[in-house]
Amino acid sequence: MIRIGIYGYGNLGRGVECAIKQNSDMELVAVFTRRDPSSVKLINENVPVYHVDEALNMTDKIDIMILCGGSATDLPVQTPYLAKYFNVIDSFDTHAKIPEHFANVDESCKAGGKVGLISVGWDPGMFSLNRLMASSILVDGNDYTFWGRGVSQGHSDAIRRIEGVKNAKQYTVPVEKALESVRNGENPVLTTREKHTRECYVVPCEGADLNRIENEIKTMPNYFADYDTTVNFISEEEFNKNHAGIPHGGVVIRSGVTGKNLENKHIIEYKITLDSNPEFTASVIVAYARAAYRLSCEGAVGCKTVFDIAPAYLSPKSGEELRKSLL
Amino acid sequence: MIRIGIYGYGNLGRGVECAIKQNSDMELVAVFTRRDPSSVKLINENVPVYHVDEALNMTDKIDIMILCGGSATDLPVQTPYLAKYFNVIDSFDTHAKIPEHFANVDESCKAGGKVGLISVGWDPGMFSLNRLMASSILVDGNDYTFWGRGVSQGHSDAIRRIEGVKNAKQYTVPVEKALESVRNGENPVLTTREKHTRECYVVPCEGADLNRIENEIKTMPNYFADYDTTVNFISEEEFNKNHAGIPHGGVVIRSGVTGKNLENKHIIEYKITLDSNPEFTASVIVAYARAAYRLSCEGAVGCKTVFDIAPAYLSPKSGEELRKSLL
Repeated sequence: MIRIGIYGYGNLGRGVECAIKQNSDMELVAVFTRRDPSSVKLINENVPVYHVDEALNMTDKIDIMILCGGSATDLPVQTPYLAKYFNVIDSFDTHAKIPEHFANVDESCKAGGKVGLISVGWDPGMFSLNRLMASSILVDGNDYTFWGRGVSQGHSDAIRRIEGVKNAKQYTVPVEKALESVRNGENPVLTTREKHTRECYVVPCEGADLNRIENEIKTMPNYFADYDTTVNFISEEEFNKNHAGIPHGGVVIRSGVTGKNLENKHIIEYKITLDSNPEFTASVIVAYARAAYRLSCEGAVGCKTVFDIAPAYLSPKSGEELRKSLL
Repeated sequence: MIRIGIYGYGNLGRGVECAIKQNSDMELVAVFTRRDPSSVKLINENVPVYHVDEALNMTDKIDIMILCGGSATDLPVQTPYLAKYFNVIDSFDTHAKIPEHFANVDESCKAGGKVGLISVGWDPGMFSLNRLMASSILVDGNDYTFWGRGVSQGHSDAIRRIEGVKNAKQYTVPVEKALESVRNGENPVLTTREKHTRECYVVPCEGADLNRIENEIKTMPNYFADYDTTVNFISEEEFNKNHAGIPHGGVVIRSGVTGKNLENKHIIEYKITLDSNPEFTASVIVAYARAAYRLSCEGAVGCKTVFDIAPAYLSPKSGEELRKSLL
């Protein structure tokens, strides 16, 4: 059994708890929280919840620590800190800061003789992997990534900060016409506006000025100004009925050419459609936690990403079984 | 520069020659053939063509040998034979015999201190990889593989063997309704007939009995009897105009569930659409040839499959570049 700790228990941590239950070679040993542990209710009430300060007392009871904090302020500190004492895995997703985070985690891993696996999930993660593999196969070509239809937490938060907004959810939606052009191998050059639209569902406070709210959303720089944005005002009841989930998805497409005169077109497409973004991300992380643990057992040390993991490590099956049943 | 030899020069060998030209870190050193070398015309006429008997004189000039023979009789003999002397890669695609082929190649590799990479292409190959990864992520779920729309060489050959048939091409076509049901997460149980149809384009000999030909095709056991098959008789002119290519494609779908009560559905889909089946297969092989060569440089020995290759090895870029640009 691979003994797992969860560090941080929000949507992602809860998803990891569920995913561990689906993998019979894994066991959840403890959850660590910054809150009062007695206030945190797990799905499995038999698993102990400890304050984060107690984590270092458990170094001999946990094979890999799964970090479930946020990328803005939690993971840049937590992952390098814990990587001295545990094999660690996180879903750090600030693309521009990955090299810095990698270096920090690598240094800690090497100091502690541990394996760290960072930026695991779907983007970064499975989407990155598909970009890498497809561009290595189809050398002459273009990459396209479309996100959605799905909930952007950051954009939903931005709307909720507007005065007069009680609740809000924002869906990022790929433009069907752009997708079609890419799938046809037309290699279009697409502006931000041509790739995605933004759909907002807003519950206003009573008596709020709806025109002002709509205008503030649509003109918000970085978040909405560069997109075709639609704003729908709905009741709290409708919000809870139709917009309670956290669905997401997206597609990575490589459009490339081969042949004597590069006359033959090829399309490689990787598409995911998710009812629950955090639960899917958690499922990816848990499969890679198995890989990180195995690498550590083989004596590996240092920081790694999905690019460095041979796929066989993700499965509990032996190489022989895999070749027989899945190749 | 990675110095490459091609062993066997048919459609696949020609595709490999084209793919090497697209990769600036690779160089084609020689092509080996069982035919009279002077009868083989390469795209690049500066590359020498030798008889296969001369291959062993080139062990110090070739970093990896790409085998482009057939799976029925060529590769089971050639790959184990050459793996004693060269790092080798093949596209052995008889799924049921992969364990045996693996064992034979592994033994030779170990005797010669070489790396062998077998069954590289798209199925087996990229499709296998996606089945493995998606089933490791979505543990509770079902796998679906659909092939086509594309040319099945085996089925086309079977039609051509019928008396009165001058030429023929057979397309395997996924049933759209089945695909839709899978994509909707309905997890259908599908019979052979419900998954694919078979479209045949047949050029008859003059005066041939068309009814007999059609009947022989549609009732042919293993090949057509279990499918809804349509037979179209066309002129040689139309055949050459519209059915000269070797397009193919297909899709691997994993439909799975997560959550406290497995209440959330997820779909992972990997889809390829190819103008040229052999050129795409060749492109996959060439990327993996880079990986095999690198592993050999690191001291690896033995037989491997796509399951054993960390994706970073496929790209000529460094780990640092990959993390910065693609993660």
